[in-house]
Amino acid sequence: MAKLVECVPNFSEGRDAETIDAIAGRVSAVAGVHLLDRTSDRDHNRSVLTFAGLPDAVAEAAEGAMEEALLRLDMRVHEGQHPRIGAVDVVPFVPIDGATMADCVALAKKTGAAIADRFHVPVYLYEEASANPARKNLEDIRRGEFEGLAAKMATAGWAPDYGPAAPHPTAGAMVVGARMALIAYNINLATNRLDVAKKIAAAIRHSSGGFRYVKAAGFMLADRGIVQVSMNLTNYEKTPIARVFETVKREAARHGVAILESEIVGLVPSAALTAAAEFYLQIEGFKADQVLENKLREMT
Amino acid sequence: MAKLVECVPNFSEGRDAETIDAIAGRVSAVAGVHLLDRTSDRDHNRSVLTFAGLPDAVAEAAEGAMEEALLRLDMRVHEGQHPRIGAVDVVPFVPIDGATMADCVALAKKTGAAIADRFHVPVYLYEEASANPARKNLEDIRRGEFEGLAAKMATAGWAPDYGPAAPHPTAGAMVVGARMALIAYNINLATNRLDVAKKIAAAIRHSSGGFRYVKAAGFMLADRGIVQVSMNLTNYEKTPIARVFETVKREAARHGVAILESEIVGLVPSAALTAAAEFYLQIEGFKADQVLENKLREMT
Repeated sequence: MAKLVECVPNFSEGRDAETIDAIAGRVSAVAGVHLLDRTSDRDHNRSVLTFAGLPDAVAEAAEGAMEEALLRLDMRVHEGQHPRIGAVDVVPFVPIDGATMADCVALAKKTGAAIADRFHVPVYLYEEASANPARKNLEDIRRGEFEGLAAKMATAGWAPDYGPAAPHPTAGAMVVGARMALIAYNINLATNRLDVAKKIAAAIRHSSGGFRYVKAAGFMLADRGIVQVSMNLTNYEKTPIARVFETVKREAARHGVAILESEIVGLVPSAALTAAAEFYLQIEGFKADQVLENKLREMT
Repeated sequence: MAKLVECVPNFSEGRDAETIDAIAGRVSAVAGVHLLDRTSDRDHNRSVLTFAGLPDAVAEAAEGAMEEALLRLDMRVHEGQHPRIGAVDVVPFVPIDGATMADCVALAKKTGAAIADRFHVPVYLYEEASANPARKNLEDIRRGEFEGLAAKMATAGWAPDYGPAAPHPTAGAMVVGARMALIAYNINLATNRLDVAKKIAAAIRHSSGGFRYVKAAGFMLADRGIVQVSMNLTNYEKTPIARVFETVKREAARHGVAILESEIVGLVPSAALTAAAEFYLQIEGFKADQVLENKLREMT
């Protein structure tokens, strides 16, 4: 079975269409790489590309995008609301079908070393690719941002994993690693009580005592007169969607509130939905290759 | 997006391995066709091949299998428990991703006409491919079996859709058509009361007043000391798995019995499980191309 890998690099440019097109063009140009999505945010002045393919092709596309970004972006004049330390700010590799997390860790290290070597950009490993607990979370690595990077790199414990010990003058530094696919998942409640959404978000998110792989916040959807628990599920194998949904449902019931509906924003791995079906239908002994499409993919 | 089609022909030979290998070999030999499964039953003296690919390739594989079966099988000496009218008894085409039922109806007609023309075998259309209400159900077409075929074909209303008006001397007749993917689905109950399984099967199956696309029977699993509601779901879009599961659960509760587990036997289309996840998680506005693997397949 082919090992498919997804790559979701974030670039510090969200305004100049020509520049973003040029970077995306380097990804599309690699045979066997499929550009699944691209989004740009003017306020954040940041773009995200999502592409997938076989590991070597995906690595080649990431390097090509890096080369283009290096030619075109200058962090000394970059401004935007989103925290960032580099022109190619963060490059996560995500296992899809057939690929394991170990495959993606290996790919992150290989790509990080190659980019540091070729472009003289310092590279930090993060998440599953990092063995250092202080350098697993992106927020920790990015703290101080591009403006504080030179000072940070000079302090103990912040030598990069690959490349020079000081920032690249225009490209800053790059963070590369491996993580599970992220699922953007929202649950809308049949109420306009914002306090209920906020209490439920607090109950389920990791930072305040909830599930290990849930980030959550409560929002008002003013035009619909309802509230929303907005979530990122960062590991759907260890914290599955169905468990989160059932917990939100139970917490809402405690406030006399029902779930109106939920929504998945963007892409979701097939396995995350299959797991929910298995849970509710109490399916025992199910194997991934019983899914007709998986079986077909195995054979191609 | 590529139009993928599955084909599940049934052959009147389940004992001679060399013959079955030769027929399966004709399928595997076609480029782009993937043989997903093959099963043979000695008592029924019958084999089923499951293969998939692009429509033209799948049609070529079906014709190749017909040619091989024609060379090797002789219905005049065939015996087996399962009803049958021909060497290649029935050839259903099933839409997978990207293909519609209309695509499969067209493919069934094209393949049926080609086989009648090339091999001088009478061909009947059935299920979605048949416009004649008396000739939609396989059981109706097959009634009388090979032994009664010549007499049946001579009666009003039983001229074939394609080919000669009398049986092929050794191959009988062939039935070809289009249908939805079949899901073999069992629900095990936490009881040894066979009457409960039989009552639930009667409640949900079409023939006794239940759902349009459910066939069901109650069985004892003697070695485990429990009972099973064994089902075929013949159209998971119109009678979805979750609705069947919830109905079985409710009917079992009326007898004070809980569901122990369920199981899917063999292959299941991804969309059937995704629909169950959508139902239970109350997901609104979900599109098939939000499934990462579907999106990838679309691009290849």
